[in-house]
Amino acid sequence: MKKSNKDTVVFFDTTLRDGEQSPGASLTFQEKLLVAQQLATMNVDIIEAGFPISSQGDFESVKSIAQQVKGPVICGLSRANTKDITTCWNAIKYSKKPRIHTFIATSDLHIEKKLQKTRQQVFDMAVNAVKLAKSFCDDIEFSAEDASRSDIDYLCSVVEAVINAGATTVNIPDTVGYSLPTEFGKLIATIKQKVKNIEKAVISVHCHNDLGLGVANSLAAIENGARQIECTVNGIGERAGNAAIEEIVMAIKTKPMFFPVSYNINTKEIYKSSKLVSNLTGITVQPNKAIVGVNAFAHESGIHQDGMLKDKRTYEIMSPQDVGVPESLLVLGKHSGRHAFFKRLKDLGYKLDNTVMEELFSKFKILADKKKCVYDDDIDSLVEQSVSGVKEVYSVDYVNVTSGVGVIPTATIRLIKKVKNKTEILQEASCGTGPVDAAYKAIDKITGIKVELKDYTLRAISGGEDAQGEVNVKVNYDGANYIGKGMSTDIVEASINAYIHAVNKIVVMSLGGKK
Amino acid sequence: MKKSNKDTVVFFDTTLRDGEQSPGASLTFQEKLLVAQQLATMNVDIIEAGFPISSQGDFESVKSIAQQVKGPVICGLSRANTKDITTCWNAIKYSKKPRIHTFIATSDLHIEKKLQKTRQQVFDMAVNAVKLAKSFCDDIEFSAEDASRSDIDYLCSVVEAVINAGATTVNIPDTVGYSLPTEFGKLIATIKQKVKNIEKAVISVHCHNDLGLGVANSLAAIENGARQIECTVNGIGERAGNAAIEEIVMAIKTKPMFFPVSYNINTKEIYKSSKLVSNLTGITVQPNKAIVGVNAFAHESGIHQDGMLKDKRTYEIMSPQDVGVPESLLVLGKHSGRHAFFKRLKDLGYKLDNTVMEELFSKFKILADKKKCVYDDDIDSLVEQSVSGVKEVYSVDYVNVTSGVGVIPTATIRLIKKVKNKTEILQEASCGTGPVDAAYKAIDKITGIKVELKDYTLRAISGGEDAQGEVNVKVNYDGANYIGKGMSTDIVEASINAYIHAVNKIVVMSLGGKK
Repeated sequence: MKKSNKDTVVFFDTTLRDGEQSPGASLTFQEKLLVAQQLATMNVDIIEAGFPISSQGDFESVKSIAQQVKGPVICGLSRANTKDITTCWNAIKYSKKPRIHTFIATSDLHIEKKLQKTRQQVFDMAVNAVKLAKSFCDDIEFSAEDASRSDIDYLCSVVEAVINAGATTVNIPDTVGYSLPTEFGKLIATIKQKVKNIEKAVISVHCHNDLGLGVANSLAAIENGARQIECTVNGIGERAGNAAIEEIVMAIKTKPMFFPVSYNINTKEIYKSSKLVSNLTGITVQPNKAIVGVNAFAHESGIHQDGMLKDKRTYEIMSPQDVGVPESLLVLGKHSGRHAFFKRLKDLGYKLDNTVMEELFSKFKILADKKKCVYDDDIDSLVEQSVSGVKEVYSVDYVNVTSGVGVIPTATIRLIKKVKNKTEILQEASCGTGPVDAAYKAIDKITGIKVELKDYTLRAISGGEDAQGEVNVKVNYDGANYIGKGMSTDIVEASINAYIHAVNKIVVMSLGGKK
Repeated sequence: MKKSNKDTVVFFDTTLRDGEQSPGASLTFQEKLLVAQQLATMNVDIIEAGFPISSQGDFESVKSIAQQVKGPVICGLSRANTKDITTCWNAIKYSKKPRIHTFIATSDLHIEKKLQKTRQQVFDMAVNAVKLAKSFCDDIEFSAEDASRSDIDYLCSVVEAVINAGATTVNIPDTVGYSLPTEFGKLIATIKQKVKNIEKAVISVHCHNDLGLGVANSLAAIENGARQIECTVNGIGERAGNAAIEEIVMAIKTKPMFFPVSYNINTKEIYKSSKLVSNLTGITVQPNKAIVGVNAFAHESGIHQDGMLKDKRTYEIMSPQDVGVPESLLVLGKHSGRHAFFKRLKDLGYKLDNTVMEELFSKFKILADKKKCVYDDDIDSLVEQSVSGVKEVYSVDYVNVTSGVGVIPTATIRLIKKVKNKTEILQEASCGTGPVDAAYKAIDKITGIKVELKDYTLRAISGGEDAQGEVNVKVNYDGANYIGKGMSTDIVEASINAYIHAVNKIVVMSLGGKK
């Protein structure tokens, strides 16, 4: 890796190592590769791809990332021993820019209780580990685990020694998320001042979020001379997680006077990275999460919306476009213009002619004056009210579905089709893999419309054995998505209603049945 | 309100005002009262109950909270005009400790663009508002909206004037979440130094989280003399939300050397408050949220768990009990003791004799050595493997279910019952509100066990029309809950499998089939 310019802060993403240590966040081999590729697209400087010694699976995925992901430095973690470091090298050596990251704890608590060693033993292990790593490659990072609770003089002596041994990056982790910004900033300043050879290495920090201060501590470190930040997408990681990459980057971007540093991250890829990581790990992002939460750019109160209408800067310090939030995710309100509204109609799958769209926009403006936020459901009902007369082309007349064990699921369906003044009665039967599948196939036969089922969800609306079930389906027709909803105490019936609802939308919005 | 001791930081909770401005977070009258009561139990010093002028509903709920919630100061928000302030007073006057909170923006951007006034006009409005409020009650708070982007000399002159007019608390909001801890700390220090009469009022801060720094900015303010913190439970609020009360309190508690201040919050009520607010508002808490996230106290990696076993302090800076996290929510691992394991068995609904429980504990220890975390599913399968021989008392032999439109949902079911060496074949038919209900009623008739269905969920495991569906049911029998799971491409079959799974558990665990 080329030595980083002192005025550039490099981003070391550990989503695939520390982030993957989040309870329940296990990623498959393929998923790790997907994340690594997106991190490369977002232009992170270093990807910590895993901890190769920890399992054969981790070794293989680090190796594949080293082989396949171009651009960033590919780094692997290893404890301060020969086996870990050798295994790490065997995984990362395929990268054009490999880095070995080795660590050992330097706080007395960890040295005595966890490692059961002396300070001198740990000192020697650290130096020997770095020397061994250096025999494999040039780019070596050393981490002093639990640095923020370590004796400062001892910590400085270890840092100085590992730099002499060849470490090019020295990382100062706040392993348990115990630091406050002022003290952590002071720690970095002290290291910068006391360690004689510190100019030969990049100072890195790795902050945990146990007190909600991971990002603030990282920023305090930058103010005091750190030039590498270890962080994760969405701030996932052990316990309350790590510092969130998106928050640190956007703080630097938003406050250039305060942080006279450059960075390589493409901020427009932030939102996409966030969605990918939350979808693959199953770790949700709360609505009020800074930068990437669904509400981060929503302005709810009347006072704020009024200000936003007069001048966006009154309540907005960065634009959602800067972090790649698709416009379609912004809640519409009275400050939303014609362009935004038309785009949303399109995103919802409606294909309408201009006259209808203009009519809808007037109605939307009236609604937005009354309601603080206009959601997609509101727009759906606006459209459905407007496109009158042909609201229900198909309606259900008769259904008989049989299924069971030792029974081939079979559905017989009769629909009534009304177009203007003409009424037809149509019926078909079909088998399927289950009663719902059989019913959907019978409906497809009747309508002749070939739709693709993209998503199906069922939730109970009320409790007990006679609970109402609500089914939501998303179907795709000709490249556009249509949502259908159905409710019933009978889940097969609710499923059929939802499907017919979506099919009717296709007929009305997309197949000439317009207006 | 009694003038706060300079060494006490008072907590001003605005969950019901700023928090309720989160998109989609509307609370009903009764829900607001529940939250206010829980805030009083947690011992917050001031509850901002709402913005009485904003709607009749808000007025009524502020009034009810003022009438019914004892302990904290009850505060209402009002813009700097007569109608707002009078309406606010009419809502809060029923409290024993009422506070009027009035605000106006002091940044040039807001003064010019939003208010379309001059600095002098805003100055006069602020002073007149405070004077009017003071004619109603003693406890008056003034907020300089967008203070962090205001001209510092002008801001100081407004603060000084409102204190002279009677304000007892002066609030310095970072309205758009634009500040960094060092600059925000400096702002508070400057106000403390420049405003001549500042000793007559409490300095308050109100920090938003747009850059993920709401908590850090609040702590920086405390370091520099602020003694009131405005915050919300879970950090909900406009956009990326407000500073989270739980993170600020726990930072102060964890770092007493750094914050030589006292506070009145009962931290053991934090978790309960968090759950209540997330359940009522529907705003989820992400797993990696500090203090109250479900993973905040989970230690996933082998290295961390090893350290935890040797000395908890190696990776834990506060205990989950301090914030009232119930033990049952902690993921079990090799550091979990007999007591924790037995309690979890009981929570999962198992009633087992001591010999069986001891056997299971030995097996759990072996499993925990191999697996990083032991989840409830793992415990379920431990129990099922241990309680051998009678694993499947009932199994499905034949099912025929008919439903539809114009059809009475009917199920015919034949089960095989095996107890020791005896095999019986039993069959029944039943009608129901839908195919699943009919099937469950037929099963109830066969087994003669009266169970109550508490929860039913279905999710698609894979995409497309032949997706596998997974059904989870929770049933209650004799006061204990039993979980059943079933999978099939046929949702009716998956539902039946899940129910039978739960019924078998009841038979084995609860009805003498123990061993």
